[in-house]
Amino acid sequence: MKFIGEKSIEAVCTLSGLTQAAAGGGSVSFHGSVHKIRDMGDVAFIIVRIIDSTVQCVWSKDHPAFDIKDICEEACVAFTGNMRYEERAPHGFEVVLQSAEIISLPAAPMPVIINKGKIKATIETLLNYRPATLRAGEMRAKFRIQDGIVRGFRDFLHTQDFTEIHTPKLVAASAEGGANVFKMEYFGRKAFLAQSPQVYKQTMVGVFERVYEVGPVFRAEKHSTSRHLNEYTSLDFEMGYIKSFYDIMEMETGFLKYTFDLLRAEYSAEIEQLNIDVPVLDKIPCVTFKDAKEMVAEKYNRRIKDPNDLEPEEEQLIGRLFKENYDSDFVFVTHYPSKKRPFYAMDDPENTKVTLSFDLLFRGVEITTGGQRVHDYNAQVEKMIAKGLDPEDFTTYLMLHKYGIPPHGGLGIGLERLCMRLFNDDNIRHATLFPRDLSRLEP
Amino acid sequence: MKFIGEKSIEAVCTLSGLTQAAAGGGSVSFHGSVHKIRDMGDVAFIIVRIIDSTVQCVWSKDHPAFDIKDICEEACVAFTGNMRYEERAPHGFEVVLQSAEIISLPAAPMPVIINKGKIKATIETLLNYRPATLRAGEMRAKFRIQDGIVRGFRDFLHTQDFTEIHTPKLVAASAEGGANVFKMEYFGRKAFLAQSPQVYKQTMVGVFERVYEVGPVFRAEKHSTSRHLNEYTSLDFEMGYIKSFYDIMEMETGFLKYTFDLLRAEYSAEIEQLNIDVPVLDKIPCVTFKDAKEMVAEKYNRRIKDPNDLEPEEEQLIGRLFKENYDSDFVFVTHYPSKKRPFYAMDDPENTKVTLSFDLLFRGVEITTGGQRVHDYNAQVEKMIAKGLDPEDFTTYLMLHKYGIPPHGGLGIGLERLCMRLFNDDNIRHATLFPRDLSRLEP
Repeated sequence: MKFIGEKSIEAVCTLSGLTQAAAGGGSVSFHGSVHKIRDMGDVAFIIVRIIDSTVQCVWSKDHPAFDIKDICEEACVAFTGNMRYEERAPHGFEVVLQSAEIISLPAAPMPVIINKGKIKATIETLLNYRPATLRAGEMRAKFRIQDGIVRGFRDFLHTQDFTEIHTPKLVAASAEGGANVFKMEYFGRKAFLAQSPQVYKQTMVGVFERVYEVGPVFRAEKHSTSRHLNEYTSLDFEMGYIKSFYDIMEMETGFLKYTFDLLRAEYSAEIEQLNIDVPVLDKIPCVTFKDAKEMVAEKYNRRIKDPNDLEPEEEQLIGRLFKENYDSDFVFVTHYPSKKRPFYAMDDPENTKVTLSFDLLFRGVEITTGGQRVHDYNAQVEKMIAKGLDPEDFTTYLMLHKYGIPPHGGLGIGLERLCMRLFNDDNIRHATLFPRDLSRLEP
Repeated sequence: MKFIGEKSIEAVCTLSGLTQAAAGGGSVSFHGSVHKIRDMGDVAFIIVRIIDSTVQCVWSKDHPAFDIKDICEEACVAFTGNMRYEERAPHGFEVVLQSAEIISLPAAPMPVIINKGKIKATIETLLNYRPATLRAGEMRAKFRIQDGIVRGFRDFLHTQDFTEIHTPKLVAASAEGGANVFKMEYFGRKAFLAQSPQVYKQTMVGVFERVYEVGPVFRAEKHSTSRHLNEYTSLDFEMGYIKSFYDIMEMETGFLKYTFDLLRAEYSAEIEQLNIDVPVLDKIPCVTFKDAKEMVAEKYNRRIKDPNDLEPEEEQLIGRLFKENYDSDFVFVTHYPSKKRPFYAMDDPENTKVTLSFDLLFRGVEITTGGQRVHDYNAQVEKMIAKGLDPEDFTTYLMLHKYGIPPHGGLGIGLERLCMRLFNDDNIRHATLFPRDLSRLEP
C-alpha cells in the first residue's frame, strides 16, 4: 500500500533559498522559466524567472552546459550551477551553469515583449494576452502586493476577533436594488448576482458580532469608465456594538496601517520594482460631505451642481486639497445625504437629512463606502416606507432586526480600486488580473 | 479638523479578556446578547452570548441591577458586575450584576428555541430561520471551525510560497463544459458562472508558479442530494514544476495536518462543544480506482455496475474498508478513467486509459478532485480533438500552453463537504451558512 504524507514536503527554490546557498558556496539547483536570453556568441546571459524573483545565469561556449539553441525564452528549465558573487548582477550574484534539463518548451514566441523594462503595449493588448503579459516583472510585483493587501486585511481583522464568513452570490433579492443588478434564470425562477454581501454580513453580526468576507461582487453598470469593473473583489466587514460610526473608520484606519507596514516589511522587492510610495499612515482627516463640497467649490472656484452627490472631479479635488493642506493621501468624507444612501443607512439623529455614513478617498478616488446601519426593527420598517419600499418585500432581510441586533455598521473596500491608487495606475483594469467590463469577458 | 487613527482601537470583550479580569478580581464591563434567562423569582441566571463564548450572570432581587422585566432573550445589553469563582458555572466563574444598559431589544420572540441544547427542528426550519438559528451555540461552533479551516488552508499555503489570486466568476466559456453551468445575459452576450477557477489557476502557474484561491463556484446540477449544493466555496490550488501528481497529494496532506493541528490548538472550545473527532493525521493510504472498486466488490460482495465511475455507495464502502484495515479517515483514490475526466487531465503515459488524477475521500465522501494537467500545447490540442472538441473554441484557454508552462497540477476542495464530514452532518446544508439548492435561494 502506498501512503502519502510520510516524507516532508520539498521546499521550492526561492530567492532567499538561493542567496543562502550562495553564502555557503558550491553549486545550486533550481527551476524556472527563461525570462530573457542575451546571447553574445561566446557567452550568454540567461535571466531565469523563479517563483519570487529572477536569477542571472551565465552560459559559456568554452564549457557549454547545453546547446544554447535548445532553449528559448519562456522555456521551463532546471539548472545546476555554481554561485558567483557579481556586483553588477541583480541581487549581487550570478549562477555559472553546469548542467541543464529542459522541462518544457513554448509552442510560439511571446506575443508581447515582457522582458525589456516597462511593457510597451496598449491596454487592449495587455488584457487580451493576459497569460503572457502577467509574466512581466511589473505585473508580478503588482499582484504579489495585491496578495499582501488581502493578507493584511484578514490578518488584522483576525487580531480584532473577527470571524470570516462565506455568503452566497446567488440571491433572490438585492439589498441595494436598482438597475445595476445582473439577472439570471435559476431552475425556473429569477435570481440575481449579489451586489454586496450586505444582508448576510448584517445577519452575521447577530451570530459572531464581528465578521468579514473577501469575495466577488457584481455590478451591471452600463457605463465604461477607468474606475469601474462589472465584477470586483470586495473586502467587507461588519461589526456590532459600535458606539458611533467612527468606530468603523477607526477599524479601517487600523487595517490600512497594519497592511502598509506589512507591505514594507515583506513586499519591499515588489515596492521597489514598481517604484511606488506606500503611505506612512498616522491619522486620517475627516470632513463632512457638505464641508468638503464647499471647501472645494471655494478653493478651486467651482459651482456646486449636484448638492447630493460628489462628482469624480470633486473627489479628485478633495484629495488634492487634503494632500496640500494636511499632507494626507487619505480623507474620510462623512454624513452623505440620506437621499443618496440606501434604506439600511442610519440617519444622523441630529439631522435626518444626512446619514451616519462615509466614503474613504485615497489619492482622490473613493475606495470605500461604509456606515452605521439601522438596527431597530420598527425604525427600519419606517425608513423603508419613507423610501417608498414595501416592507413585505423584505421579510427575509428584516428577520435580522426582528430577532434583535446590536447597533452595528461596516464597510466594503474595492480591492482593485485600492490597488489602482497604490500603483498610481490610470485605469483600474491594470490592477485587475482578469478584468470584466462592458465588452470584456475573456480571458 | 477631526482625525481618525490617533487613539488605539478598543479591544472587544472576549472570554479570555474576562477570565483575565476575573483573575485580577474586581468588576468587569462587557456587552452581548441575552442568550437565556432562568428567572427563579428572587434570583435570575442570565446567560449572555459574547463574541466567542457565553457568560453566566446573576441577578438578584435584593440588590437588583435593573428591573428584570426590562430585558428579554435576544436583548443586546452592556453589563457591569463582580466576577465570582463558581465551579458549577461554565468556565468556572459568574458575574454578579451591578448595573445594566439595555442597548437594543428584539421585536419578536425567537421563532425556534436555540438555547436548550441541540435545536429540535426540521432542516427546513433551521434553514428558513437562519438569522435566528445560527445564533445557537452549536451553529456558532461549526462556523467558527469553518473559519479555522480556511485560515489553515491559506496560512499553510503561504508557508509553501503560494500566492493568492482573485479570478472572475463571470466567464465566456466553461472549461468543464457540460450542462451543469448557469447561463446569463451579459450586456447582450451570453455569459456563464464559473464552475471552477480552472483556466485561471492554470494560467497563473505561468506567473507565480504556485497559486491558490478561496471563492464561490457554481454548479447548475438539477439533482437534489444531501451532498450537493448549487453554489459552494472551493479551496483551489495549482502548482508548477511537479515531479509527479503525488506532489499535489503531498501538499493536500500537508494542509490537512497543519489545519487539524490549528483546530486543536485554537478551536478546542468549539471542538468540545460539537463533540467531534478531529483526525490525527500521519499519512493517507492511496489506492487506484480499479483496485478500490475490486476490493469493495470482493469484500462486500457487490457487482461492479459502472467500471468508469464510483457510485456514492462505493465511496462509502471504500471509506469503511480503509477505516477498518488502516484506521484511516482518509483515502486517496487515484488513476480515474480518462473517459470520465475532463480534457485537461493528463493521461498516465503507462496506460492512457487512466489519468494522473485523484479524489480524496473523507469518511466515505469525496471532498477533493485533483490531478496533473496537460502542459504541452500540442498534446493538449491532440487530446481536445480526441475528445471531440474543437481547439478553435479554446483559443483563450490554449494561450497558457502556447507561451510555455511547466508540468503542473492542482485540486479543488469543497469546503462545505470537508466541514460536513468533520461535523458528522448527514446533510451538507448543515455545514453551510446560507445554502443554495434547487428550491432554496433565501435567506
